[in-house]
Amino acid sequence: MANIRVSIITIGDELLIGQTIDTNSAWMAQRLNELGVDVVRRVAVGDVAVEITTALDEELTKAEVVLITGGLGPTADDITKPLLCKYFGGKMVVDERTLEHIKTIFTKRNRPFLEANMKQAEVPDCCTVLHNRIGTAPGMLFHKAGKIIISMPGVPFEMMAIMEDEVLPYLQQNFSHDAIVHKSIITSGEGESFIAEKIKDLETALPAHIKLAYLPSPGIVKLRLTGRGNDKLSLESELKLRQEEFANRLENIVVSLHDLPLAQVLGQSLIEKKATIGLAESCTGGYISHELTQIVGATQYFKGGIVCYDREVKENILGVDAKTIDTHTAVSEEIAIEMVQGALKVLKVDYALSITGMLGPATDKDEPPPGTVWMAVADKSSVKTRKFKFHYDRLRNKDMAMQSAIVFMWRFINNKL
Amino acid sequence: MANIRVSIITIGDELLIGQTIDTNSAWMAQRLNELGVDVVRRVAVGDVAVEITTALDEELTKAEVVLITGGLGPTADDITKPLLCKYFGGKMVVDERTLEHIKTIFTKRNRPFLEANMKQAEVPDCCTVLHNRIGTAPGMLFHKAGKIIISMPGVPFEMMAIMEDEVLPYLQQNFSHDAIVHKSIITSGEGESFIAEKIKDLETALPAHIKLAYLPSPGIVKLRLTGRGNDKLSLESELKLRQEEFANRLENIVVSLHDLPLAQVLGQSLIEKKATIGLAESCTGGYISHELTQIVGATQYFKGGIVCYDREVKENILGVDAKTIDTHTAVSEEIAIEMVQGALKVLKVDYALSITGMLGPATDKDEPPPGTVWMAVADKSSVKTRKFKFHYDRLRNKDMAMQSAIVFMWRFINNKL
Repeated sequence: MANIRVSIITIGDELLIGQTIDTNSAWMAQRLNELGVDVVRRVAVGDVAVEITTALDEELTKAEVVLITGGLGPTADDITKPLLCKYFGGKMVVDERTLEHIKTIFTKRNRPFLEANMKQAEVPDCCTVLHNRIGTAPGMLFHKAGKIIISMPGVPFEMMAIMEDEVLPYLQQNFSHDAIVHKSIITSGEGESFIAEKIKDLETALPAHIKLAYLPSPGIVKLRLTGRGNDKLSLESELKLRQEEFANRLENIVVSLHDLPLAQVLGQSLIEKKATIGLAESCTGGYISHELTQIVGATQYFKGGIVCYDREVKENILGVDAKTIDTHTAVSEEIAIEMVQGALKVLKVDYALSITGMLGPATDKDEPPPGTVWMAVADKSSVKTRKFKFHYDRLRNKDMAMQSAIVFMWRFINNKL
Repeated sequence: MANIRVSIITIGDELLIGQTIDTNSAWMAQRLNELGVDVVRRVAVGDVAVEITTALDEELTKAEVVLITGGLGPTADDITKPLLCKYFGGKMVVDERTLEHIKTIFTKRNRPFLEANMKQAEVPDCCTVLHNRIGTAPGMLFHKAGKIIISMPGVPFEMMAIMEDEVLPYLQQNFSHDAIVHKSIITSGEGESFIAEKIKDLETALPAHIKLAYLPSPGIVKLRLTGRGNDKLSLESELKLRQEEFANRLENIVVSLHDLPLAQVLGQSLIEKKATIGLAESCTGGYISHELTQIVGATQYFKGGIVCYDREVKENILGVDAKTIDTHTAVSEEIAIEMVQGALKVLKVDYALSITGMLGPATDKDEPPPGTVWMAVADKSSVKTRKFKFHYDRLRNKDMAMQSAIVFMWRFINNKL
């Protein structure tokens, strides 16, 4: 069989009134893409029978495989399961394996097994049940006119478990695919337009089977080359050459050639150097620490941080001089330096970063304008400082400050400042 | 004109390969919903002309207003603007106001104005230009067969600005809508099924124009009542009564009747009590501090936190006894208590919370199983502790620990433990 096209339908009123951000589709698309399977469309509809049926009808004309998430919860606002049963012409029966599994989960979590949960074990008799290792709602696989329809719960971790355990292996066994290779170049310090201009000729020279995409996010621009072909190995080396070509052209704004979170790129540098790091965060309020500790194994290099939101904490724990604050204000190069020196000392780390700023909204004319941020990074023998100016609102400025801080540390540690 | 139905089309390969999570649609849906405008479908397609055209054709049969985001960036992978121009039968012209605006932005940000940016000022001559206050790509409004199509850039903050400044006022002026009222009940401590069973009769008794939805997220379940009618005032009081009825039934698991982040609910309690708070975070690595400082005005009550990821930081800054760690391990009630007492003292706050745990993945048989977390919360005169067990992976456990910690603090402060 040739390459298959996949369409994803997500069901739930919560998606149409904006109460829930759809993270499922992105995750599903990513995993499918790694297998060389193209997602051609994603559709979100409400918990309304006619909308669901229409979406099914339409997507089945556009794709060979339709993946559905949502609408399978234990509560009364979910209507998908009986609807699918009717759509595929089956009747509801209790699946014994699922029932046993649900009871085990309830016992383990020490919760009473209720009538509403019993319904979770019912499935249309015309489907193949897909086991849900971590939750109560099973997945269901249907066939119709040579096409495949798979329904999964909307709870992200349950959907992920069913995808990994059942759906991805099934697709891999039953369909052959093109090889797809992605190569990324993570940059920081310049905007999308600047980069586009700088690599214009390289982009134009790309062959038809290699595409370039720009993926900007706060503080960074990621370039992604995607190649498609029959032979994975030769494609891999072809993409690697192109990646190097682009990276050489962009030289000093390149942070990494691996599609990893910046926190992990920084972590790898620290592991290589067998060095530790610590933080003194004022305006970012713990966000940088949080980001660093998202990475498995951060305990090897991250010792901790002082969130010194209040002036007293800066003075009492980091030893910042009250007079320096009075003279220069808390958002100043001088305070950033005293903070980073305090952090090096009290956290007993090889490297430290400090950050102090005003993220917004504006509250007082005498303060520096929102978006003004000072950072300092230091080791035992040197300190570097930098002033940043972000132009957005509080939360976006916080995002940008966090990402910029990680890049700033990474540059300092790798002598790229 | 009657109520309008809106369909949202998001354009971009990055959405179909999962590189980007679509946060735009949720935000748009939320704002439209507040105006009483129903979003009936959301569709995501790639940067492929035929896919975009098909989506436009189809959505125009299902909705009176089609909102498009994405595909308007300055770089070569964006094809939407010329496509729309062709679709609506126009030709590209430079919009002088947009050109001036783009040049101003470049001057302000101290960046060179490049040829690629010039293109941003071009628009189809058959559209109404919608001003983009904070970015370079303008929005565009088209008419076709009595329907309205609006195209906006995919960068979230730019889309938001155009929605607020142009699109929402336009829709409000040109269409009349039902009044829509939402009332929320935020609960913590019980699962969706338990809640459903407990309020079954109240849910069944709801009239047809009021809907109930369950919105579970890590550590909390939000119930949302949505009413629709002609008269906003009477709907408001009707919904308020229903909300009270549900809240009374659920009594001690109710955290708030306002649809606010838990961090803000906690902040309001602290402001009322004129009290300050501080944190000692081990396993959550600054996440709770980050969450508390997302709230505007957190500076009134949040003084700071110690992220004590490493044992040495627990000992040196919080004064945790090395012997206690050796005897009880770092993940224990005893350490949580010493941490919280240390935090109260060094941060000089009225309330403190400490958290220590293993979030995963499992690394060593001797450690407590992943998901084991101890928390302590204290004021000058008392300490309460609680052991939590989370059943997911590292990042989800971190989410749940963070949310649970905020609820735990809120309960302690409001004498609800």
